[in-house]
Amino acid sequence: MDWFLQQAKTPSDIHRAAATQRQQQLTKPAGSLGELETLAITLASLQGSHTPQLNNIHIHIFAADHGVANENVSAFPQAVTAQMVQNFSSGGAAIAVIAQSLNAELAISNVGTVQALPALPKVLDQRIAAGTANFAHGPAMQRQQLMAALDVGRNTVARQQDIWLGGEMGIANTTSATALACALLMLNAEQLVGPGTGIDQATQQHKAAVINAALVLHSADTASPLENLQHLGGLEIAALVGGYIRAAQLGIPALVDGYICTVAARYAIAINPSVKPWLLLSHQSAEPGQQALFDGFAYSPLINMGMRLGEGSGAAVCLPLLKLACDIHNNMATFDHAGVANKD
Amino acid sequence: MDWFLQQAKTPSDIHRAAATQRQQQLTKPAGSLGELETLAITLASLQGSHTPQLNNIHIHIFAADHGVANENVSAFPQAVTAQMVQNFSSGGAAIAVIAQSLNAELAISNVGTVQALPALPKVLDQRIAAGTANFAHGPAMQRQQLMAALDVGRNTVARQQDIWLGGEMGIANTTSATALACALLMLNAEQLVGPGTGIDQATQQHKAAVINAALVLHSADTASPLENLQHLGGLEIAALVGGYIRAAQLGIPALVDGYICTVAARYAIAINPSVKPWLLLSHQSAEPGQQALFDGFAYSPLINMGMRLGEGSGAAVCLPLLKLACDIHNNMATFDHAGVANKD
Repeated sequence: MDWFLQQAKTPSDIHRAAATQRQQQLTKPAGSLGELETLAITLASLQGSHTPQLNNIHIHIFAADHGVANENVSAFPQAVTAQMVQNFSSGGAAIAVIAQSLNAELAISNVGTVQALPALPKVLDQRIAAGTANFAHGPAMQRQQLMAALDVGRNTVARQQDIWLGGEMGIANTTSATALACALLMLNAEQLVGPGTGIDQATQQHKAAVINAALVLHSADTASPLENLQHLGGLEIAALVGGYIRAAQLGIPALVDGYICTVAARYAIAINPSVKPWLLLSHQSAEPGQQALFDGFAYSPLINMGMRLGEGSGAAVCLPLLKLACDIHNNMATFDHAGVANKD
Repeated sequence: MDWFLQQAKTPSDIHRAAATQRQQQLTKPAGSLGELETLAITLASLQGSHTPQLNNIHIHIFAADHGVANENVSAFPQAVTAQMVQNFSSGGAAIAVIAQSLNAELAISNVGTVQALPALPKVLDQRIAAGTANFAHGPAMQRQQLMAALDVGRNTVARQQDIWLGGEMGIANTTSATALACALLMLNAEQLVGPGTGIDQATQQHKAAVINAALVLHSADTASPLENLQHLGGLEIAALVGGYIRAAQLGIPALVDGYICTVAARYAIAINPSVKPWLLLSHQSAEPGQQALFDGFAYSPLINMGMRLGEGSGAAVCLPLLKLACDIHNNMATFDHAGVANKD
């Protein structure tokens, strides 16, 4: 059996029940901390711990280019993918600043920029190809390229992580993500396409037409989620899928970023439904297509701050909320202990 | 002229313009960080700084009892107010855990628990009265008590603070806050009343009836926001009003917590409209009446996580988001500096 089909770990009902009970005993009206309570209970269940924690945080970005960029679907030139990898490495990109601010480790897997890059701090050279092929004309990947990308993601997950947080960078990858979402949800591109990095209305219509034509072109070869990924996906998207599945298999919760990551996470669930309870949505993206994917998850996104950058940035911004949920759960006094009278 | 009527500082248009321009030059699609961009620009304007910051954080809780608790409008006994002051001091309350987790300073002003408390770490004994009088039968405060409470809040604001964050504790204070909101917005209590700490539907109807009767009782004496505060308010609510006004006068942004604090902040604006640009809403509370008050503010709340605890907890949970907004603004690379190609 392929590794990615193996069952995910089962969340702990015992720890869920104990955490639920503890939340009722803490010195606050029951339920008054809203989603912070739910989060703590969920993390206790997933981490199998009475004291859920978020101390050991790694953020892993996957970067790759997309052949479909040649169809003029993005506002930025393709060279920006590699330039941003350098910017992640040197600390100037949003996710690099956020990681530093949160004292989180950051690493970048280059799974396929068009141009090779020199050795860079924090960057793993794991190029599988010089970008995907243009899926407007043929399959984005060969089967063994897809398997290699899944493996890259798999190998970024380590047992000691409190949470797994993946991000992405790849010019034109909202086009790939939208094609994948359309194929999975049986929708037309017009129902999901959005501004991406900031294209105008006419370019959005063109982007939708490119995607719809590709869905027709590949329709005979896309009967399964894996085939969709191979024909319409990206190397960085496939790596994310591998990461999500491996995290769930190791019993590590994963925090899902915006549109691209949400598509990858839905594919992880489509390929291996047992991973579903391990994938936490972080933020509602300003990219409109993301919402159509929420139904397939066990939880709702935590925040909506109009973000649409990618890089894992929206998920990373949620990390302090998860940490506070844990700290509150672990460190608040109970009514009994504090000598505070409970309701009625 | 009373101190609280003096003009607030004017936010800096120069720093707003410079921050807006800088956000366009950072290595991300323009606008892609959504409200984090807006926040950084707002903080730059309010702090009059090209590098807005959130390092020096004090959280100040005001605690007091309410005579109207005798009308059986709360799920918790009145003794809980004083018990929670002790719980703030000893570190077991939610806000104490959050402050510790965020490395923020916490202080508590006891402006009027029914019972006097022994000396406690972090607690300032500033009791003005043994709680307010029951406004179901007469004015909650005397005029000089109101002035004293405003002064307590005023004196918690110091020039070196990067932001002022006030919170509250007072059994039955959603009843007082709802009466104040009804008087200001000319609404019936049924339109705003909510579960507070967790009362059932019948108690909510009773709570609304108590408030509506009080609005009639005091109608001849509540022609101004200050008169409303005196007749229907609470000592901790008045202290919050004083804090919000003073922060604006000193040019310090204030982060507004949930329902009670939002009512206090609306009163600060009603008393002195020049404070409006300084008051940032933090979170949308699960207490339903809060939403009716949003129209009076310059900004929308940042998050909605179903919280309804008070204690400043919802605002404190937003502090990491504000800090990230500042760090991103100050530390990201520009397109020019990073050698990343910009759009088109």
